[in-house]
Formats: sequence, C-alpha cells, structure tokens
Amino acid sequence: MLRVCYNAAMSKDTIKIALIQHACGTDSATNVNTFCDMATEAAKQGAELIVTQELFASQYFCQVEDESRFDLAEPIPGPTSQRMCELARSLGVAVSASLFEKRAAGMYHNTSIMVDRSGEIIDRYRKMHIPDDPRFYEKYYFTPGDLGFRVQQLPGAGVTTGMLVCWDQWFPEAARLTAMQGAQLLLYPTAIGWYHGETEQDKADQLAAWQTIQKSHAVANGVYVAACNRVGVEDDLTFWGHSFIIDPAGHVIAEAPQGEPAILTAELDLSRIDTQRRGWPFLRDRRIDAYQPLTQRLLDQ
Amino acid sequence: MLRVCYNAAMSKDTIKIALIQHACGTDSATNVNTFCDMATEAAKQGAELIVTQELFASQYFCQVEDESRFDLAEPIPGPTSQRMCELARSLGVAVSASLFEKRAAGMYHNTSIMVDRSGEIIDRYRKMHIPDDPRFYEKYYFTPGDLGFRVQQLPGAGVTTGMLVCWDQWFPEAARLTAMQGAQLLLYPTAIGWYHGETEQDKADQLAAWQTIQKSHAVANGVYVAACNRVGVEDDLTFWGHSFIIDPAGHVIAEAPQGEPAILTAELDLSRIDTQRRGWPFLRDRRIDAYQPLTQRLLDQ
Repeated sequence: MLRVCYNAAMSKDTIKIALIQHACGTDSATNVNTFCDMATEAAKQGAELIVTQELFASQYFCQVEDESRFDLAEPIPGPTSQRMCELARSLGVAVSASLFEKRAAGMYHNTSIMVDRSGEIIDRYRKMHIPDDPRFYEKYYFTPGDLGFRVQQLPGAGVTTGMLVCWDQWFPEAARLTAMQGAQLLLYPTAIGWYHGETEQDKADQLAAWQTIQKSHAVANGVYVAACNRVGVEDDLTFWGHSFIIDPAGHVIAEAPQGEPAILTAELDLSRIDTQRRGWPFLRDRRIDAYQPLTQRLLDQ
Repeated sequence: MLRVCYNAAMSKDTIKIALIQHACGTDSATNVNTFCDMATEAAKQGAELIVTQELFASQYFCQVEDESRFDLAEPIPGPTSQRMCELARSLGVAVSASLFEKRAAGMYHNTSIMVDRSGEIIDRYRKMHIPDDPRFYEKYYFTPGDLGFRVQQLPGAGVTTGMLVCWDQWFPEAARLTAMQGAQLLLYPTAIGWYHGETEQDKADQLAAWQTIQKSHAVANGVYVAACNRVGVEDDLTFWGHSFIIDPAGHVIAEAPQGEPAILTAELDLSRIDTQRRGWPFLRDRRIDAYQPLTQRLLDQ
C-alpha cells in the first residue's frame, strides 16, 4: 500500500491521458500492433498515460469454457508485458495494460500492469471481483485476485492511479477502498457488450447502468474515473465501446463512439479533486463506526 | 435488525407508493395540513405507502445556527407523529415521515418514522450521516444517529423498506448495509437545493450528481429507490424538487417537476428485484475478505 500524498507541491496539476478503444481479431500479434500504433498516435497528441481495454491482446475468450484458451495466457514479465515496457520507454509515457496472466501451472489471473515512462513495471493488480454469466465464464478462467485494491504513484506523471478491472466497476467497495489509498484516477479496462438476443430496452438499460455506476464512483469519492471498452462483434456479443472519462463531479468530459475504434484523450486537472471534496465533503462524514457489517455476505438474521 | 424474507409466497408482488413534494411556509400546522391533504389524495389514487420530504413540517431551518430553532423539535411520540398515526389509520395506508426529534434535553435527531396502516409506529431511523456546509448547518442541530441502518417489514403492504435520510444518499455504504438486511425499497426524504450564488453549470452538475448517486444504489444493490425532495424558495436556497422513483435496473420510472408540488406515484413490481439480481449477480461476488479496511477513515500509510 503506497503512502497517500496530498501535498500539491509534490505533483503537477494536470495530466493528459488516452484510452485506446479498438476491435480485436483472432491474431494476438495484430491486436497488440493495433494498440501500439494507436498508442504512438496518442503520445504524439501529448498523452502521458495510455490505457488499454480489458484483455486487449485477444478476443474476449471467456464466451465458452475451453481448456485450450488458457494457452493465450503469459507470465508477467512475458512477451506482451515486455512489449508494453518497450513501448512506454520508447514513447516516454506510462502505460496501463490489461493482460491474461499465467501465474503458475493451473493458476491464471486477469491482471493489469502499470508501466512507468522509463519502461519499468511498477505495480500489478489482479482483478478482485470475477463475474460468471452465460457468455462471460470468467470464474472458469480467472483465479480471484489476491493482491487487494491498490494505487500506483506514477513517477514523472504526477498522478496516483487506481487500477481496477471491468466487473470491479459494479462494486462501490472497490472504488472506495482504492480512493481511500489516495487514487486520483480510477482505471477500468472493460469488455462489456450486448448479447444479440437481448431486447433494445434491455440494451439501453445496460449501457445506462454501466455509465451510472461509474459516474457514481467519481461522485462518491471525488475522483476522476476512466473506462476503456472494446468494440466489434465477437461470436454472440457486440462490444459497445463508449469508453469515457469522468471528472470528480460525475460529469462526462470525453466519450468515444459506440462502434468505432477511438483514441480518447482528456486533460485532467488534479486540483479539482480537492475543490470537489471541499464542496461535497463526503469522506469527512463516513460513519466508520457502523460499517463493520460490510464484511458480511448478507445481514439475514 | 429484522429477518430477511426472500420467500415470495409471503409477500404480494406489487405495491403502489406515493411521494409528496411540496413547499413549506413558516407555519408548521399549515405544512402538516398540506401534506395530509395531498396524502389523502394519494390514497384515493391507490397509494399504499406514502412518503414525506425531509423535515416536512417546517422550512429547512438549518440555514443558520439559531438556538431558538430547536423549539421546532418534538418528542416521538409527539403531536406530529400522532397526526401521522391518525392519518395512516384513517386512510389505511403506511406513512413514512421525516421529523425533527427531541430525544432529551439538548439531544436532537433528524428522524424518520414508519407508521403501518393500522396507525402504529413500527420503526424509527435516526439519520446517520450528518452534513455541514454553509447554509446546511446540520451538525449543529442533529446528533448523529445511533440506531444503525435498518429495514422495516410493512404488515399488509408486503414490502420491506429501508428508511434513510438525505445526506445518507451520498454514501454507498448506507445503501449497501440497508439492502443487505433485505430492503426492497430505499427511501430518501431530502431537502436539497441550489444556493442562489451558484453558477448554472454548478447547478446542473449538482442535480445530475444527485440523481446519479441514487440511481447507482439501485443498480449496485438491485433495489427500488425513492427520493422525495421539497420545492420552493427559502432564504438563500431554492429547493429543486425532482422527486423520483428508480427501478432495480437504475431506470427512472417516475419523476416530479422542478418547481411545483406533486403527488408522485408508481406501482413497484417487487418480483423485478430477483430478476434483476439474477441478471447482474453483484451480491454473489462481493469480496468480503477484502472489505475490512472500509471501517478506516483513510488508508494513508
């Protein structure tokens, strides 16, 4: 757990980030090249931190339970993480990348790494909340994370990030515990889409709920939030894109289109975090004396 | 803490609720009469549970710190709570009322009571999270609640409610702890408005954030949420109304206007809670092994 730094003099006030939203084919090398090309363009536009979508090196392989798909995983460090380190060093930017990690024989994680601009992996986060629904069989592939909720202080970039992954976005506890460590920006690489059998109303409700819950983390915690989602049709799912960046008031400051690749950038004014929290001092008023039962499953007796 | 009942056979599937949004003048008797008249109309429209706005019997007296304003408080039971009991019994409906409670000499609470349709007070909740900002000097008036987060099983109405109050709405922990006890419907009587010196952008952001955070409680917990806010200009504030009712998907199913009184009703289909939670089983996947630090103020070392 890193030390919270609220000393404004120790960090610059703005950072430009970029989310890379794209489609994935069946060839991993092509997917990684697509990201690297778009990241290079983002760096030219001034991005200092570049974020991948969830499991950006492959198609979303969890639509079926197939033992051979574990072959997509790599150790960390491994070829794809090394490629990210080289990219970060060559561009002089930080890169947060979502990878399928092979930790040991028969133990795999959905893992994000943070690479600083010198090309070093400074932290990793293993997805804590694992979904399992038809076409999202993640409990089969991913061992639940055991590194807890974490923050990353980026040397040079002057921001403290909190890497989280996809399903984590539905849990206010994850956002809170990350913000409480000093995160100024929550990152949610995501693979979310519509099953082709759903009604139009269900589809609209799902997209709205996905935006709402992440806006609420910004509001409740007074932090920036960025979600990076893929696009494209893969088997039974159409991934809906709509990557977005939210300010500490819950306002969407940048949003990518639904069905097209996008380099989504925004300049974050980190001084707004203190301003927002002075106006709405929620962190001051938490009733920590009454929160112990949050560690229970249900309060049914 | 009441026992959770998930046995559908023990409850009917729908309940019609009404939120009463109105302006308040300086005469408490008139304010209470206004509510009773509107509640009577709501009952004629079929409402089975009727909800007041926050501190509905008076103007929002917390805009200044003035010792004489403690005179507005009453014990519970007391005149206003008895009036609510008579109203509930005469109409044959449940009433959730937000009151300024005098508990003892020098100890006052912002308290909600639940009156069942027979006219009995079956539960009370004392506001747990207390704000304090310019023009909202609640820490001066209200001792923080000591009854914890609670649910109310309504005899006859077939619904389990969770009474919360205003500032509680900004805390995901409060919604979660109430839903975990089996609440199907979270109630937030509210007194929120715009300070006249704010910019139009700030005003828009505040209203949007207020809606977002409460929608997020519906989404995160798979419950109905209802917020009842006042209207009218009182001193430096214009209360913005916009009372609303949200379904477990986070969809607004009823919304009152900004500047006018309203009887806002909706029929809630309680079977949708199970449907929603089957589709998005967030409660299944909480990482309770990692939530202990939520009982800390900040994780800064």
